[in-house]
Amino acid sequence: MASGREIHLIAYLKTGPTANHVGAWRHPDSVIDDILQPSRYEHIARVLEAGKFDGCFFADLFGLYDIHRGGFDTYIERGGQISFLDPMMVLPLMARVTSHLGIGATLSTTFHNPYNLARMLASLDILSGGRVAWNVVTSATDLEAQNFGIDHIPPKELRYDVADEFLEACFALWDCWEDDVFVMDKARGILADPKKLKYANYRGQYIRTRGPLSIPRSPQGHPVIMQAGASDRGRAFAARWAELIFAAQASKPDMQAFYTDIKSRMAARGRPPEDCAILQQLTVVLGETESIAREKAAYLASLIDPELALAANSSGLAVDLSKHATDAAVTAAQGAQGIQGTQDRIRQIMRADGVPFEEAVRRTVRGLVVGTPVMVADHMQDLFEEHACDGFVVAQTVFPGNFEQFCTSVVPELQRRGIFRRDYIGHTLRENLRGQSLSP
Amino acid sequence: MASGREIHLIAYLKTGPTANHVGAWRHPDSVIDDILQPSRYEHIARVLEAGKFDGCFFADLFGLYDIHRGGFDTYIERGGQISFLDPMMVLPLMARVTSHLGIGATLSTTFHNPYNLARMLASLDILSGGRVAWNVVTSATDLEAQNFGIDHIPPKELRYDVADEFLEACFALWDCWEDDVFVMDKARGILADPKKLKYANYRGQYIRTRGPLSIPRSPQGHPVIMQAGASDRGRAFAARWAELIFAAQASKPDMQAFYTDIKSRMAARGRPPEDCAILQQLTVVLGETESIAREKAAYLASLIDPELALAANSSGLAVDLSKHATDAAVTAAQGAQGIQGTQDRIRQIMRADGVPFEEAVRRTVRGLVVGTPVMVADHMQDLFEEHACDGFVVAQTVFPGNFEQFCTSVVPELQRRGIFRRDYIGHTLRENLRGQSLSP
Repeated sequence: MASGREIHLIAYLKTGPTANHVGAWRHPDSVIDDILQPSRYEHIARVLEAGKFDGCFFADLFGLYDIHRGGFDTYIERGGQISFLDPMMVLPLMARVTSHLGIGATLSTTFHNPYNLARMLASLDILSGGRVAWNVVTSATDLEAQNFGIDHIPPKELRYDVADEFLEACFALWDCWEDDVFVMDKARGILADPKKLKYANYRGQYIRTRGPLSIPRSPQGHPVIMQAGASDRGRAFAARWAELIFAAQASKPDMQAFYTDIKSRMAARGRPPEDCAILQQLTVVLGETESIAREKAAYLASLIDPELALAANSSGLAVDLSKHATDAAVTAAQGAQGIQGTQDRIRQIMRADGVPFEEAVRRTVRGLVVGTPVMVADHMQDLFEEHACDGFVVAQTVFPGNFEQFCTSVVPELQRRGIFRRDYIGHTLRENLRGQSLSP
Repeated sequence: MASGREIHLIAYLKTGPTANHVGAWRHPDSVIDDILQPSRYEHIARVLEAGKFDGCFFADLFGLYDIHRGGFDTYIERGGQISFLDPMMVLPLMARVTSHLGIGATLSTTFHNPYNLARMLASLDILSGGRVAWNVVTSATDLEAQNFGIDHIPPKELRYDVADEFLEACFALWDCWEDDVFVMDKARGILADPKKLKYANYRGQYIRTRGPLSIPRSPQGHPVIMQAGASDRGRAFAARWAELIFAAQASKPDMQAFYTDIKSRMAARGRPPEDCAILQQLTVVLGETESIAREKAAYLASLIDPELALAANSSGLAVDLSKHATDAAVTAAQGAQGIQGTQDRIRQIMRADGVPFEEAVRRTVRGLVVGTPVMVADHMQDLFEEHACDGFVVAQTVFPGNFEQFCTSVVPELQRRGIFRRDYIGHTLRENLRGQSLSP
């Protein structure tokens, strides 16, 4: 492409049968009996790499949602979005069967420790040849806090202040080692050059770490920083750190407003706009014809348990929607909990679709697009060219068939239009995100 | 075997070129250029499984030793025992290329959080089909504490009190799920049975966690608990929790005394002796004849940098031996730091070999045995039959050749004598350690 601008694609994954579409696991074609098997995750990694996706990442939670009706029954029984495996144990396996696909983990700055997290991610970046992304979250629920021995999640401002220090600490640790530290001289007995190594000595208000890591500098130096903050404080954080933003606005004008806001905030910090790709969530239902696709979408919608749909938004809002039925009641009940993005999206649905709050909270499938591969590509191209986004976070419906279909039908259509890569340009995730190879 | 008693073998590994023998990486046959490659660790896993080892584990540290001469220079430059990769990122890969080999991680109860640790290990136990061991350590150095923002490591008694609660919390989390929770009924929309799931609600003096994990019950229910405590408090902890003990006494009488002490402590707690296998560290140098083996051992010894040997014991004692030259001076300088086992072993070397402290601290290779495969098997059989141990933690010299040689020469010799398995009896690590298959 002359402009050099290309769509970026990241797959949204869960270590369970359910992702964004809470009914799709019930579809006859959905494979659900291998959710605890390595082969499930290896297969999808291979499919996504064949489709030239920039990468994939696992959404995650340090717990099991039990907000709706005060328990986890709906989530477990009806098949909500659950991490049945720690994604950090799955990602090394996916890296091993691929060579270019980016692999992302959601890790919380509120419940992890910078030293251990920096060590894990640097190691995975080395083992994968520079393909790691870190989706930075600050966590948003008391249930997670209580798993870590704290009664309540800290207030959002404090969480983000800690997160800023957390990343400063991690970067200090990742910068302890220079490149090419190994000498490997058996005769002289010199393994490495200690002059290429220094302490981190990071001292913030909340976080301290001395270093150094024992892990050498990784191919990317540090993982690609991914973020999904929608609040004012979250956007400020993203504008400072993010190289990849995962958003889920409900309408094109809302996406454009978000896009412009983030790119201006970046400019104000002196960061060029191409340093961060803003991706919007996309869930596709494909058919050979529009009417087949619409009928498939209607069938999929019929599989959504209404109570589970409500429970999913109870989880995102961190308020029991069976008790609190209005926007105002939700806001009053939240305290420090809840995800701003979920709340924004519900209000955008109310505005865009002209539905009341009670109806909007029953809609859970974010970024749903229904049609032929050409129609889906049209939709993507329009949002991309009109600066609603730089690409998409694609969530599954029927798994793995939906990703397979997307890669064999939508991806070639995007490639024909010259707005998506025909092959990887670089070796690392960051190179592919920037559309340039930094290696010789 | 009539008695049913068989030797157990665990390999001692590091994610770096150096394990127990700090000179062996310099040997011409040592492979050192792939320490950051997955293939290195996959290969050794396959070798150990072909040799019917019970399992392997990675020794680890949350930092880089910088005690000797107040810096990390000796360790980095001369090639000390360093974790160049987080073992937790490597173990999934080793599990994936094997089907019976146990895989163990060293994880600290002082610097990890029970919720995250329980989640990681349960996930790995699921993905490996029930082959995970957790080498429980409480950490022993201020340098690790400082990486986690604390000036000094807490006192040993407190660390073990916290560790007791840490394990209680983890077991409560691992017991949240019953077996067979999944229903997977697409037609009725029932994924799992919420009645088979409960909260952990663990509240100790130091640790609280609510649960549940989102991870289903793993094949082993909980990982095999491995421990290496040598102090009185450490032994009490091991007698309560350990299913596998890693020890490194310097002489047979010392091993026997340790063995009797642990088994009596277990009996006092009502645990049968076979519930815990006590393994002694073993480092072998093999030759076709005794004289070849001796010459090889002398050559290997000549590769040990004297300063690095001293630095290795500075690390274990957590005192700079370049400054503190006597046993009393070391004890006075330690504070809350240091590993009791290292101190014990140095005193045992002084006693057994009749050498002064200054000489004993220069000897680092634990459990060294030199000879033909038959001689090594004799040595192992003697210690095993005389109840000095139930098996061995085998450390490499030349890597991977030393493990390959051990598996092709010593293992068959042990098998011929009927004191080591010819094949795995069970699927899980615990089944193989107990010598009985629990599956139908």
